[in-house]
Amino acid sequence: MVQPSKPGLKDVAQRAGVSVTTVSRMLNGSLELPVRTRQRIENAIDELNYLPNPHARRLSRGRSDTVGLVVPDIANPFFAMLVAAVEEAADEQTLALSLYATLNRQGRELAYLELIERNHVDGLIFVTNHPDDGRLAEVINRTGNVVIVDEDVPAARVPKLFCDNEQGGRLAGELLAENGHRNVLFIGESDEMISARRRYQGLAGALSNRFGTEIRPQRYEGGYTEEFGREAARRFIAEGSGATAIFASSDEIAIGFIEVVRGQGISIPGDVSLIGFDDVGPLHLFAPPLTAIRQPVRTIGRRALSLLTETDWKARGEASSEELLPVEIVVRESVALCAKP
Amino acid sequence: MVQPSKPGLKDVAQRAGVSVTTVSRMLNGSLELPVRTRQRIENAIDELNYLPNPHARRLSRGRSDTVGLVVPDIANPFFAMLVAAVEEAADEQTLALSLYATLNRQGRELAYLELIERNHVDGLIFVTNHPDDGRLAEVINRTGNVVIVDEDVPAARVPKLFCDNEQGGRLAGELLAENGHRNVLFIGESDEMISARRRYQGLAGALSNRFGTEIRPQRYEGGYTEEFGREAARRFIAEGSGATAIFASSDEIAIGFIEVVRGQGISIPGDVSLIGFDDVGPLHLFAPPLTAIRQPVRTIGRRALSLLTETDWKARGEASSEELLPVEIVVRESVALCAKP
Repeated sequence: MVQPSKPGLKDVAQRAGVSVTTVSRMLNGSLELPVRTRQRIENAIDELNYLPNPHARRLSRGRSDTVGLVVPDIANPFFAMLVAAVEEAADEQTLALSLYATLNRQGRELAYLELIERNHVDGLIFVTNHPDDGRLAEVINRTGNVVIVDEDVPAARVPKLFCDNEQGGRLAGELLAENGHRNVLFIGESDEMISARRRYQGLAGALSNRFGTEIRPQRYEGGYTEEFGREAARRFIAEGSGATAIFASSDEIAIGFIEVVRGQGISIPGDVSLIGFDDVGPLHLFAPPLTAIRQPVRTIGRRALSLLTETDWKARGEASSEELLPVEIVVRESVALCAKP
Repeated sequence: MVQPSKPGLKDVAQRAGVSVTTVSRMLNGSLELPVRTRQRIENAIDELNYLPNPHARRLSRGRSDTVGLVVPDIANPFFAMLVAAVEEAADEQTLALSLYATLNRQGRELAYLELIERNHVDGLIFVTNHPDDGRLAEVINRTGNVVIVDEDVPAARVPKLFCDNEQGGRLAGELLAENGHRNVLFIGESDEMISARRRYQGLAGALSNRFGTEIRPQRYEGGYTEEFGREAARRFIAEGSGATAIFASSDEIAIGFIEVVRGQGISIPGDVSLIGFDDVGPLHLFAPPLTAIRQPVRTIGRRALSLLTETDWKARGEASSEELLPVEIVVRESVALCAKP
């Protein structure tokens, strides 16, 4: 589709009597112009029949003018917010962004990774949410130009960006320990996923430190979904778990958990304390407002794009690197003093 | 990028001794296979170095094998859920889907529409969130193959799919009227947007019917965002509006509104009743659980894709058509009997 005679930004700028930068910034919406200037540029666009092309910018060292973002599931508010952050950052850099949702299926993940080899994208920000059997790493190590975000692909040798999961677990554990909770239930993924492994380690470490003895919190493993939150709540009630506090390692788990226990007349935090993880949705409006570990989602999205566009992919060799972004705890009203001695 | 000697699905199927459909369905994840069969197919893929291509399927009457979905902002949970619904439906039809976020800017919208003319996509599901000055309609009428969803582009002559906004306003008005509320404040967009125009009409009609006189509810116009919800709440307090009930015409507005009034010690529904619109987030966990009009987001997404893929675009001519999907009211605890006579 080479169209050598197609009018470009330069032609529009010349005709309108403004700079190329002005036209470019007007088109990507980053510049408010006086009505008359805007009108002059729009007239020039019409007269020349200029087609603004979202794929017309070049990523440094790139070939296709487009970067991609692969996430498991856009309906999850955490991923939706991550996508929005990358989109915003890409827009500022006047880079085109293609989004792909995998539904967490390896077949789709592999196909999207191979878009790099087909030159459909210059590189990918890649989020998976299941343990890798080695095939993802194999393709990533072959293609390069991939930044892994949120969850690890352990054998992949590329830049990786995570929130500080261990710190998140520790902050939750410290707050619970301060409130006298020793018997805590962790709900989340299995140790195969670094997010879960590190959150659990942080939690266990903080409780052990505070109580001066090794504590291994109870653990329900199943996933990060609302459905698993509901399942865990039903099990918690049926087993009479004895835990006085819950560390729900995603907002979705916390939402499912609250739904079920509230239906059973169990009070939060009267009967059981609860801490969530992500803090993306309107948890501050819940009854009670939910205490949660907050992920720096916008920072993660922006930093992921920087890692992709600023890495010198030819020079970096086969190293893998890991960067952690700090989390914080947002204390609201879902944790109370432990009633049991 | 023609690669005539590239192995195809057929070669993989032949080598593995299964049907092409089996390979295809395994790759798109819609078929669970016995471990051995799966292994045989994976071996064949490895031996042939077959690259599964997410863009390898053909939309009926299409050219590029891909459909696109254009939304203003993926961080808004309503759009995130819409994207997920379309993604899911596209996956079932083994269609590739490209997502584009416009940040509600016309320059980006126009550029994405023109992807149809460049054969990058066979067609688009298109959502805009601002009034059209005529330029969107002009391009849409030229390209065809566009289904307009959620908000209108009035002069565009293509299939359109909306929720029944007028019914939503009416359901809210009826509940408020039953509870004795006559002085109601509508918070939302201006009449230029059909969503707002119809929601307001439905509300005004229901109140007028119930009280036997024409009622024109108060109205704050500004947008569908949390920020505008906060602004409206501050204005509501500063003006001493006198309204005993609020119809917040998006969840985001309701969230911003609740934040501010709660900070001022105003009780919902003790001091003022509140109804939201969309019901996508966890409104049932709010304090108080929020009564809201529920949009059928998943149905909208699935139906939009059907309209795009099943329309005979060559035969349909220049007609525009409009299809409305019913909404429902989910009554929770944010509406109380009006205390004022």
